[in-house]
Amino acid sequence: MIKVIIIGSGNVAQHLIKAFDKNKKIEVVQVFSRQKEAVAHLLDSPKITDNFNDLKDADLYVIAVSDDAIAAVSSQLPFENRLVVHTSGSVSLEALDKKNRNGIFYPLQTFSKKAEVDFSKIPICLESEKETDFEFLKKVAELISQKVYKINSGQRKSLHVAAVFVNNFVNQLYQMGNEICIENDVPFDVLKPLIQETANKVMTLSPKDAQTGPAIRNDQKTIAAHLDFLKDENQKNIYKILTQSIQNNGKKL
Amino acid sequence: MIKVIIIGSGNVAQHLIKAFDKNKKIEVVQVFSRQKEAVAHLLDSPKITDNFNDLKDADLYVIAVSDDAIAAVSSQLPFENRLVVHTSGSVSLEALDKKNRNGIFYPLQTFSKKAEVDFSKIPICLESEKETDFEFLKKVAELISQKVYKINSGQRKSLHVAAVFVNNFVNQLYQMGNEICIENDVPFDVLKPLIQETANKVMTLSPKDAQTGPAIRNDQKTIAAHLDFLKDENQKNIYKILTQSIQNNGKKL
Repeated sequence: MIKVIIIGSGNVAQHLIKAFDKNKKIEVVQVFSRQKEAVAHLLDSPKITDNFNDLKDADLYVIAVSDDAIAAVSSQLPFENRLVVHTSGSVSLEALDKKNRNGIFYPLQTFSKKAEVDFSKIPICLESEKETDFEFLKKVAELISQKVYKINSGQRKSLHVAAVFVNNFVNQLYQMGNEICIENDVPFDVLKPLIQETANKVMTLSPKDAQTGPAIRNDQKTIAAHLDFLKDENQKNIYKILTQSIQNNGKKL
Repeated sequence: MIKVIIIGSGNVAQHLIKAFDKNKKIEVVQVFSRQKEAVAHLLDSPKITDNFNDLKDADLYVIAVSDDAIAAVSSQLPFENRLVVHTSGSVSLEALDKKNRNGIFYPLQTFSKKAEVDFSKIPICLESEKETDFEFLKKVAELISQKVYKINSGQRKSLHVAAVFVNNFVNQLYQMGNEICIENDVPFDVLKPLIQETANKVMTLSPKDAQTGPAIRNDQKTIAAHLDFLKDENQKNIYKILTQSIQNNGKKL
């Protein structure tokens, strides 16, 4: 039985507690949370502590707190030479206090408390200082996910930036599509199958091969009609810049 | 049996031929194509013509040609007072020659020849001059799709613009995510579950409620680190503008 302790009680912490607890080879022996009630629905109360000095022995300590708090939390741990990892996409390995053996256990997904997630399909990006720790982290990660990657800190930083493009920025374009629908009294539902198909297409085609529409066809008449239709300066500006960006891709070919 | 004639042989024409032919209450009696071989795999050769004067009687003529050719094709039809529709999201109803009864039959989806599509899930946006024609178009559309909408020309124009945002522009952000991965030697596959989850989320949440990440949290430290990481001016520029756009949404609340 692999003993794991989770430090934190936010979205990532809660989803990890559930994913670990489901697996028969892993036991979440304890959770540290300053707000004990935040995780009270997930495990028995004797297993929840808000005092670092009460932390038990474990094979792995997972710090799943906000980026800014990772360094401070790691230095408050009252033990040495144990395996301590954080779950952030943007914080470096060096942020963790050197008194313990350090690593990264970064699940690349957008978590919200409401939505259930299937952890087996979530990529987990691993890094560690020592090779033996890496092998152990790989074993743990593969117990809960089918997609485990060895990713160094530079690659992880790039992934985090790329994730902002394909998640936050994509969602903002959905939001703009929604705004255009609302302004013109059209149900956003009409666009939903297109949204799903657009995502599905790049599961098998490269985004470059999947591209269609007026920009890639250089259909100046339609582009001009769309710019004329849009009244909001922000919408117009983003339309122009992304049209230009699509057309520049073409030239790079 | 509802008799339909398709005029055109591109992506939309081919997918419509297949969708209509699958339904037992609809018969594709003829297809007009200047390149007969383009549709030869879809129906028997006597049913394919490249001569407008050979067009048979039908309940519905569907013009599925490029936007620029719709007006010319509709005026070359050698008959009057029949129901003629086009399938474009951006061409007005008025582009069709007045000698026939006109309408729009606009399937809102991204079609590529390779990928099979499930027409039953594709929204079809209908419009027509006469109410009786609308009822007939609705009947036909509901035979092949579960999602049929009455959409006027102004709404259709707005949908076409919104579709560019949630399809072409979203795909361009996938492309930029892919570029960042390639530049940093990370497999794009790591991002694919995130891409799917981002699309899935807005099936039930509004895009505004689904938003996460440094922009909406106004996490200036991460935003500055990302801008510092990005070297390409186009990537930097789009990062700044979409971050700003997300933050302005917040203010509108």
